[in-house]
Amino acid sequence: MDEILGKKVRIKAKGKVFEGIVMPTRSGNLILKLDNGYNVGFSEYEILDVFEAERASFKAEPITKKPELPNVKIISTGGTIASKVDYRTGAVTSQFSSEEIVAEVPEIENICNIDSMLLYNILSENMKPVNWIELSKEIYSSIKDGYDAVIVTHGTDTLAYTATAVSFMLSTPVPVLFVGAQRSSDRPSSDATMNLICSAHVARSELGEVAIVMHASTSDDYCYIHRAVKARKNHTSRRDAFQSVNQKPLGRVSYPDGRIEWHVDFIKRGERELELKSNLSEKCVLVKFFPGLKPDVLEYYYSKGYRGFVLEGTGLGHVSSDWIDTIRGISDDSLIVMTSQCLWGRVCDRVYDTGRDLLNAGVIEGEDMLPEVALIKIMWLLGNYDLEEAKKLVKKNLVGEINPRTSY
Amino acid sequence: MDEILGKKVRIKAKGKVFEGIVMPTRSGNLILKLDNGYNVGFSEYEILDVFEAERASFKAEPITKKPELPNVKIISTGGTIASKVDYRTGAVTSQFSSEEIVAEVPEIENICNIDSMLLYNILSENMKPVNWIELSKEIYSSIKDGYDAVIVTHGTDTLAYTATAVSFMLSTPVPVLFVGAQRSSDRPSSDATMNLICSAHVARSELGEVAIVMHASTSDDYCYIHRAVKARKNHTSRRDAFQSVNQKPLGRVSYPDGRIEWHVDFIKRGERELELKSNLSEKCVLVKFFPGLKPDVLEYYYSKGYRGFVLEGTGLGHVSSDWIDTIRGISDDSLIVMTSQCLWGRVCDRVYDTGRDLLNAGVIEGEDMLPEVALIKIMWLLGNYDLEEAKKLVKKNLVGEINPRTSY
Repeated sequence: MDEILGKKVRIKAKGKVFEGIVMPTRSGNLILKLDNGYNVGFSEYEILDVFEAERASFKAEPITKKPELPNVKIISTGGTIASKVDYRTGAVTSQFSSEEIVAEVPEIENICNIDSMLLYNILSENMKPVNWIELSKEIYSSIKDGYDAVIVTHGTDTLAYTATAVSFMLSTPVPVLFVGAQRSSDRPSSDATMNLICSAHVARSELGEVAIVMHASTSDDYCYIHRAVKARKNHTSRRDAFQSVNQKPLGRVSYPDGRIEWHVDFIKRGERELELKSNLSEKCVLVKFFPGLKPDVLEYYYSKGYRGFVLEGTGLGHVSSDWIDTIRGISDDSLIVMTSQCLWGRVCDRVYDTGRDLLNAGVIEGEDMLPEVALIKIMWLLGNYDLEEAKKLVKKNLVGEINPRTSY
Repeated sequence: MDEILGKKVRIKAKGKVFEGIVMPTRSGNLILKLDNGYNVGFSEYEILDVFEAERASFKAEPITKKPELPNVKIISTGGTIASKVDYRTGAVTSQFSSEEIVAEVPEIENICNIDSMLLYNILSENMKPVNWIELSKEIYSSIKDGYDAVIVTHGTDTLAYTATAVSFMLSTPVPVLFVGAQRSSDRPSSDATMNLICSAHVARSELGEVAIVMHASTSDDYCYIHRAVKARKNHTSRRDAFQSVNQKPLGRVSYPDGRIEWHVDFIKRGERELELKSNLSEKCVLVKFFPGLKPDVLEYYYSKGYRGFVLEGTGLGHVSSDWIDTIRGISDDSLIVMTSQCLWGRVCDRVYDTGRDLLNAGVIEGEDMLPEVALIKIMWLLGNYDLEEAKKLVKKNLVGEINPRTSY
């Protein structure tokens, strides 16, 4: 299928005629991107025409940097936000050049000078801890090279995981902003441009934290600036899928004027030294509890060398009482943190019997941390500290992941 | 400690004097329920006084049934909502008699005639599928005996799990209402009375479904009536912790007047025949995916005889591509359902490559089902149908667990 990849074709299938651009796939089917932006797969089809001229290579004007504007590095890792480029070239391995970005989103030229790099072009569900480490090193180098901010474009599915990992690994004196899109750029309702423009405005701001900049509502009126370690994708498809949990968003950016309103205190630009601690222990696991789940899964992971466990318990932080012996048996040389599948609110294991028994058995309360954030925190702690130190630090707020007081 | 259990004592500990009722515990510590309603544990203490007279047994007036009112059965399973009784008797094995309920919540006498039974008095994190089966049989018998509605009091932690299990097991012609309390009855902010009164009002209504009746806001103004299979506990401690997800609540009940506003269509009283299908397969597991999680956990469960898997994937329903071979290897004789950790929204694996590969490997899309609901649904399907039939039924809306169209 390589010879037609990226070309516009007309095919006959299912008794109808379809026209579209041939997309890359591993499935063996023919995937066409139709004019309405949707991808459709065909297992049986007949090719009627191949439009040779359509595989136009990308042409863009060279851009001139303006000395009065800040310099921002855009690192692309793939995902829906990069898919406009895919659509034009028909290839997933498209170069994500600053010229391309400016051609697609010309407004950005008046906000900041951008340099870009394509670090990955992978689907976000395929991001792994090793990618988090490479990305954090790339961001570190960019800041060291003098960039005034870094924007990372990322698929939305695991964007919050990656942004959380970078939050722990990298102490940053400048804004490090994660941005994605829920709808691809070739759909009329795409959020790619607005999210990118808003992140460029935040890149000029006084923020000195890792944040996520995404649609705040179903209108195109503003984006929220979420503290990465307090944010979560809470809808499969809505453009305002990201929400801050147990914490107000740091602020919001009006679109298109870029005016920022801050809602809570934040770490300012220049307040922290640039520092990278990029080790992560991969022998950590998140286990979501449900009634009837047996504790043997903990023993399974323990026997395979896992020493970091996040339990996503019920309510204030519970698992059934028949888990307690297993927990006691592995807690001496493991870090076991309790979080809640409620997601909102704070665990407190001192109220009911089971909770107190869990604490006595060696479980540590995860306070109001999201389960996913607690997981990445223990990966980072066990990668950089000994167990005793990690047990102390896990309950401490390090980068905003624990809100000292929950506001309703 | 048995000789002082349930008695009021005065102790010296941590240099101070405390007074309270001795609560049962397995922890070995002394747990006192103080006058402010909080439990406090002491590992070292000195008993100063034991007030023998305080262990008063419960006295209540016999109640007279009113022929014009509907007859409602209240089944108690334990949890915070029953804790006022605990407080008075000091014992977890208190009788939960209708006289006691009327004494605590006298308004209920003018809404319905109640009979009550104490089925369990266990913490809700200790509820197991076997308890769901026993409870559904008890509800079935009560309806068969002619009760016009059944109210189940339950700890909030796993209330939605139990209510969901009953929804699948029991076809009911009358309202079956689950009610709990986030704050125990002996605290000023308790929601126990209001939730119970509201459920009594719904017990008189035209509903013919399994529903959850809980505080709708932080004020004491009304309760929501949630369809059980669409509800979730989304906050560890707030009184309005329960929310309907991917579905509006069925309606709301004003407090204290009991006026009901319905928001969506529902199954009416008498529309369904009473029927019980109470088998559940316990060889089912819910696995929450995160970046870096390896698919060997599926093989582990498969080798132990598990044939039902709910994956809590990212976004529209993804796990990383390196899971696909493992899934393909077990999918022929397993039921594998994809849901989303976003919780809100609908999975759709036909949009991206990984999704299409997952479908080809045998994964079934869980539509807009909550992961916990999908788990209980496959436990029920594999308990009552053969695999091929279960694979067909899992995508079908059976009791409202799949919303044909997601409303935003």
